[in-house]
Amino acid sequence: MARLPEEVHSNKAFGWAAKDSSGVLSPFNFFTRETGEKDVTFKMLYCGICHSDLHMVKNEWGNSIYPLVPGHEIVGEVTEIGCKVQKFKVGDRVGVGCMVGSCHSCDNCINNLENYCPKMIFTYGTKYYDGAVTHGGYSNTMVVDEHFVVSIPENLPLDATAPLLCAGITVYSPLRFYGLDKPGLRVGVVGLGGLGHLAVKFAKAMGTNVTVISTSPSKQKEALENLGADSFLVSRDQDQLQAAIGTLDGIIDTVSAQHPLLPLLGLLKSHGKLVILGIPGKPFELQVFPLIQGRKLIGGSMIGGMKETQEMINFAAEHNIKTDIEVIAMDYVNTAMDRLLKGDVKYRFVIDIGNTLMPSS
Amino acid sequence: MARLPEEVHSNKAFGWAAKDSSGVLSPFNFFTRETGEKDVTFKMLYCGICHSDLHMVKNEWGNSIYPLVPGHEIVGEVTEIGCKVQKFKVGDRVGVGCMVGSCHSCDNCINNLENYCPKMIFTYGTKYYDGAVTHGGYSNTMVVDEHFVVSIPENLPLDATAPLLCAGITVYSPLRFYGLDKPGLRVGVVGLGGLGHLAVKFAKAMGTNVTVISTSPSKQKEALENLGADSFLVSRDQDQLQAAIGTLDGIIDTVSAQHPLLPLLGLLKSHGKLVILGIPGKPFELQVFPLIQGRKLIGGSMIGGMKETQEMINFAAEHNIKTDIEVIAMDYVNTAMDRLLKGDVKYRFVIDIGNTLMPSS
Repeated sequence: MARLPEEVHSNKAFGWAAKDSSGVLSPFNFFTRETGEKDVTFKMLYCGICHSDLHMVKNEWGNSIYPLVPGHEIVGEVTEIGCKVQKFKVGDRVGVGCMVGSCHSCDNCINNLENYCPKMIFTYGTKYYDGAVTHGGYSNTMVVDEHFVVSIPENLPLDATAPLLCAGITVYSPLRFYGLDKPGLRVGVVGLGGLGHLAVKFAKAMGTNVTVISTSPSKQKEALENLGADSFLVSRDQDQLQAAIGTLDGIIDTVSAQHPLLPLLGLLKSHGKLVILGIPGKPFELQVFPLIQGRKLIGGSMIGGMKETQEMINFAAEHNIKTDIEVIAMDYVNTAMDRLLKGDVKYRFVIDIGNTLMPSS
Repeated sequence: MARLPEEVHSNKAFGWAAKDSSGVLSPFNFFTRETGEKDVTFKMLYCGICHSDLHMVKNEWGNSIYPLVPGHEIVGEVTEIGCKVQKFKVGDRVGVGCMVGSCHSCDNCINNLENYCPKMIFTYGTKYYDGAVTHGGYSNTMVVDEHFVVSIPENLPLDATAPLLCAGITVYSPLRFYGLDKPGLRVGVVGLGGLGHLAVKFAKAMGTNVTVISTSPSKQKEALENLGADSFLVSRDQDQLQAAIGTLDGIIDTVSAQHPLLPLLGLLKSHGKLVILGIPGKPFELQVFPLIQGRKLIGGSMIGGMKETQEMINFAAEHNIKTDIEVIAMDYVNTAMDRLLKGDVKYRFVIDIGNTLMPSS
């Protein structure tokens, strides 16, 4: 059994936690470890609400450990550093994403792909090396090995940058890895939520021609005028689909709900790539004929390594990429979770931890 | 309606054709065009029997035009050349695979990927530019644009080389395209038939470590001792599967029968590639979790371009790669088709056209 933080740690901290699978969050006091040699300790300023937080607080993936403090889209300001920390100093603006540990010796770690390390430690809800369960960003402070901390350039606003640490890298990494980052390529983005709207922004900044593919015609104006997409395709409109057959070099599919893959494969040129980022509850139906006849592929991707996460943040700074957010107070979090479940947010909730999280006792 | 060859051509030819969807082949007289400026005319010497011939003679894909002369694993000797032919002379040993025409102007054609040209003309059963339906290699002679003819090096035996023109390039091309051709990589081959046994030979010649994955434990000796595979995995043995999880860089899946993909995805390392070459009657079930968590991909591939086909033949010559064949007489073809349907051949039937095809009248 995982030990409680109290048994191994002594530094007081507080946040909001889910206590059971109702998923309701409420104030919670806990302990963090002291700042180790390679650790960065920082005060929390903003934390995004990722859809996976919703799954985790309700134990929908079956692996939640309560009390559970969610949050892996984290930005803050350094308050203390360990004696061997090299990249950061007190006062630095920093970010932490989905992971806080990995083995540092497997092939993936050696190749800066800690996100695929079999021993990767998630930012919250996972047993750390000291036996304590990790707690996430819905809290006032964190202690993190500097390897898993990124630097936030001065020109990026902290609130709108927090979601880049998960949503941002989740779309940036596959655009790079699958070679969908070349100017002039035609890239489709399926679904216009937290991930999708960032995929549009990153893909545009890379110089590609972006088509948003959505079930909702109502999102057309938003996609074209506010997000800068080049075209918009209603995925239930057979005429529009027919007219766009064989036109895309790649598709970033951010939709977690069940949906057919065949029309998306049809939109790809030969040698085109369909990248799936969402995990529906049931398996997809896969017709392999388009894969064979057009040498198309279906691939996946999961966040990104630390080197690439810093690269993504720097790219966002250079191209002025910000998440579209709704900033909320800590005590609004349960309402925000309900609204997120209904898709009622453009496009990401970010909790103003620094100004609204109060000690509970 | 497609015109009959008799209406546009005058050179007499003969072969064996299916006359209806019974699929039964019998002698058939037809006409070919005269040797055009860029054409190579050759006498047929050997022709392999591909599993798709079986589908086509029975109209199982719904697009067969009768009478249908199958055969796209063709080798022969040049008897006449057009005035503008540059690569061949009378007496040369030549081969023809699955296609005899393409548009020469699309992106795929320009990139030597005629096999993905939307206007690609199949070697048999497709309307050619002159309006006649193409006839394949179960015949005494063919006239083919030199662009779609390859040269067969002297050290390759013609009979065992014929199947390389389809089965060979079908496995060679994805090994190259998906980067599964690097010495030391671990490559799985699913299914040990016409395609699979060649995949083992090509992958071994490229320097990879090859694991054959089969439902039949009885094939182990054959795979290891005769084909040179490094290891053998019985796909229904859970212990063997469990022990091999995460060990392969890529898998060439040659099986057309329905089979689960999840265990195969499990055998891949992160960033591993599952290449599907067979088309089952029903869609696969696709669980995307392994794709996402391990950044794995599922891709397809279909034969190869003409430049790569010549490269494959040259590679086979250099590495002494031959198909394992059973040479048959022309009048055995219907029996061979029945045996092929049952998988009763190691590993490819090749018809000795040159010595056994007789004029029918």
